[in-house]
Amino acid sequence: MSKSEVVGLPVPQDGDVVPCCPPITAGELSRADAEEMAAMFKALSDPVRLRLFSKIASHPGGEACVCDVADVGVSQPTVSHHLKKLREAGLLTSERRGTWVYYQVAPSVVAAMATMLDLRG
Amino acid sequence: MSKSEVVGLPVPQDGDVVPCCPPITAGELSRADAEEMAAMFKALSDPVRLRLFSKIASHPGGEACVCDVADVGVSQPTVSHHLKKLREAGLLTSERRGTWVYYQVAPSVVAAMATMLDLRG
Repeated sequence: MSKSEVVGLPVPQDGDVVPCCPPITAGELSRADAEEMAAMFKALSDPVRLRLFSKIASHPGGEACVCDVADVGVSQPTVSHHLKKLREAGLLTSERRGTWVYYQVAPSVVAAMATMLDLRG
Repeated sequence: MSKSEVVGLPVPQDGDVVPCCPPITAGELSRADAEEMAAMFKALSDPVRLRLFSKIASHPGGEACVCDVADVGVSQPTVSHHLKKLREAGLLTSERRGTWVYYQVAPSVVAAMATMLDLRG
């Protein structure tokens, strides 16, 4: 039975892994941490991907299906490609319910990015 | 006389421009805001660039010259190239003093990125 077939419990998704790092003012990033964080920033380095991400983050209920976010001026396969990239980077989690896949922001991952950029620390 | 030749006053650098945006949970990013923010994330999407950025941010006094941050395993011209990209994206400001160029984190720009990723908002 695959992980996603466990029923009745919140299923840990890739995005729920809490990543590094302390605020950048606290010290120099290690090579490994830099690789990890750079991949997350890369996921948000495309304007269409960033708009999709903001649409999902601001959608009522904190989740959205592809049908809710597809109006960003690119084709449906391109939207799916971008959502996959965001998911692979751990910024989104997803869950299939019936016909649709629903996407949610992975709060711990996004919080880790915000923490790293917090200069007050 | 170029802007950088004005003496005796803090010279406004590109990085001092305060960028957009409200937290992503507050609403959908406009196309223009997404372009602007994506460029900033792109600047941090390279591991070496991210390490240089963290070295400068965590350096005593909040600034560093190239000589302070050059030990990231790439050539000096590559370091300079990355620092230029960070400066062009508005994440660093720079100031020549004598022989050396000193780099500082542009706090308002980094704070804007952190605010955008703040899910508590």
